[in-house]
Amino acid sequence: MIKFKPLTFCSTDKVITIIDQTRLPEKEHYLDLKSVDDVFGAIKTMKLRGAPLIGVAAAYGLVLAAKRNKLDSIIVAAKYLGSARPTAVNLSWAIKRMIDTAQKSKNLYEELLTEARAIEKEDQDACQKIGEYGSILLKQNAKCMVHCNAGALATSGIGTALGIIYTAKSQHKDPVIYACETRPLLQGARLTSWELTKNNIETYVICDNMVATYMPEMDIVLAGADRIAMNGDTANKIGTHGLAIIARYNNIDFYIAAPLSTFDFNINKGEDIPIEIRDKKEISEFNGTSIIAHQAEVCNPAFDITPAHLITGIITEKGIVKNPNQKKINKLKNNILNRNRRPLVSSQ
Amino acid sequence: MIKFKPLTFCSTDKVITIIDQTRLPEKEHYLDLKSVDDVFGAIKTMKLRGAPLIGVAAAYGLVLAAKRNKLDSIIVAAKYLGSARPTAVNLSWAIKRMIDTAQKSKNLYEELLTEARAIEKEDQDACQKIGEYGSILLKQNAKCMVHCNAGALATSGIGTALGIIYTAKSQHKDPVIYACETRPLLQGARLTSWELTKNNIETYVICDNMVATYMPEMDIVLAGADRIAMNGDTANKIGTHGLAIIARYNNIDFYIAAPLSTFDFNINKGEDIPIEIRDKKEISEFNGTSIIAHQAEVCNPAFDITPAHLITGIITEKGIVKNPNQKKINKLKNNILNRNRRPLVSSQ
Repeated sequence: MIKFKPLTFCSTDKVITIIDQTRLPEKEHYLDLKSVDDVFGAIKTMKLRGAPLIGVAAAYGLVLAAKRNKLDSIIVAAKYLGSARPTAVNLSWAIKRMIDTAQKSKNLYEELLTEARAIEKEDQDACQKIGEYGSILLKQNAKCMVHCNAGALATSGIGTALGIIYTAKSQHKDPVIYACETRPLLQGARLTSWELTKNNIETYVICDNMVATYMPEMDIVLAGADRIAMNGDTANKIGTHGLAIIARYNNIDFYIAAPLSTFDFNINKGEDIPIEIRDKKEISEFNGTSIIAHQAEVCNPAFDITPAHLITGIITEKGIVKNPNQKKINKLKNNILNRNRRPLVSSQ
Repeated sequence: MIKFKPLTFCSTDKVITIIDQTRLPEKEHYLDLKSVDDVFGAIKTMKLRGAPLIGVAAAYGLVLAAKRNKLDSIIVAAKYLGSARPTAVNLSWAIKRMIDTAQKSKNLYEELLTEARAIEKEDQDACQKIGEYGSILLKQNAKCMVHCNAGALATSGIGTALGIIYTAKSQHKDPVIYACETRPLLQGARLTSWELTKNNIETYVICDNMVATYMPEMDIVLAGADRIAMNGDTANKIGTHGLAIIARYNNIDFYIAAPLSTFDFNINKGEDIPIEIRDKKEISEFNGTSIIAHQAEVCNPAFDITPAHLITGIITEKGIVKNPNQKKINKLKNNILNRNRRPLVSSQ
């Protein structure tokens, strides 16, 4: 169904091709990333973003680093790429998998390529399953509020929160989407409106401060995640916490949609999740025009933490964790560690 | 203390001079309004905004209409000006006062000028009193969250919500302000940051979706109002309702600051207040750049309604109405009607 691909790796040319997401919705412009530096720059400047997609991009970035088959340079590249964005745990998760593979590997390039492809394929499959589990929650013509972009542009598959929308659409449920524009970088306005309308989904864009006005009409709120702590507290794009508070005030269900790679089983609670503080200019300027008095200070945390008690459930590829808490997430963790040959996270 | 004047009437030249608020903070540019059309245009395009200031501007607009001393043309001008913006009740309130004066008047121009000056002076005095009552609520170094611009740029005095800040500053309480940028027209970012820093107030600008992150640090939330119903429900700039919900969730006091001219004693409850829907381009474009996919719809209500039960109190020039409700506002109404020779609103 999805009519674009935000990231493609060409093994012949050894090039990662991405959609430059900073140029959407005006232009669907493709960029070639040929080096680890290119990948770092694209992640840092958010030409490529979305927690799961960052993980996939970093994996292919390390494939590029393996071109000369030297473990040392791969480890240096891994540290470098890992520093690009601190909050999304998928980045460090994917890098750890790649380094574990590299350390056991005889043919670095080939084995890292296989591993990166496995990460990409698992991400696609996870999106598909999240879509299946999540779409059960959506009634016919459900009105859904979404934040930022947790769509096909944020993953290598159909998306997490928006994957649910696409799946419901394929079931002829025809959901109607209210997308928060998501200041300062407007991922909701620019990216979510672009990919949803491109895929024939009825979409209304609202400013972030209109949430309280439209919430009473909603059937559900669906958000993605950048990192989920053991107790269910969830880091996601700034604004998610406010959405959850306003949803609860209106007794509207608030769900997080995220693959298991977004869980950080080493972090107990939300306040321990590092929050990325980004450049003030993202807020104080627009297209070079200053929109704030020069003497004023500007705050720009890129994420916030939604406490678990405000989350109705977390929709994963293994099913929905309703009323998430430490006990349930611990069970999920043990389940993964016992079943998979390759554990998704270390057991330390 | 205030280092600018957003509106000045020169009776010699018969010209209203305003700061063009759409050009702030980049340029402090002054515009001359010489006709009713000029005043209508300035209000409609928000070169001049803020409920109390709109009232004052409309009053002087009718002075311009009285240049030829014809009652008929003043009544036509009154209807025209009254249609410029539907939510702020101060506009129709000021126009009604001017028409009442005109209908009893012998020398139209002179008497309307006197009435407009009275409206302006009362607004200045109301701001002063609101500042005095409100500043009692602020402790030393109080952290205050504010929305949109309810400042000196929105009134002919020191402002309503920001008048409280300026008064507290003059009492050496040194309040610290967190200003929500207030999409789509960014009055918080552009105007509040400009006037507060120009007057040496420590100011932090945040995006509207950062409210939940910073609310736990706040001592108080202060907002203005465009219209207050008899039961205390309050129309104010879009986003105010969300702020009130998030304040309540955090047990932070949420106050409305507004002069009595903002009360509509003819409207029982918030849902009866007309909400202005503005041009979609205010959201979908920025400096000519499209920030939303063309196929997506856009919602642009300029105001929302905060229900009275979320409002800790309404700070007026006659004191603070705590936990506002119909009974208390009725008392306020009767108090005004009995005491003032010139009732602030009709008793119909």
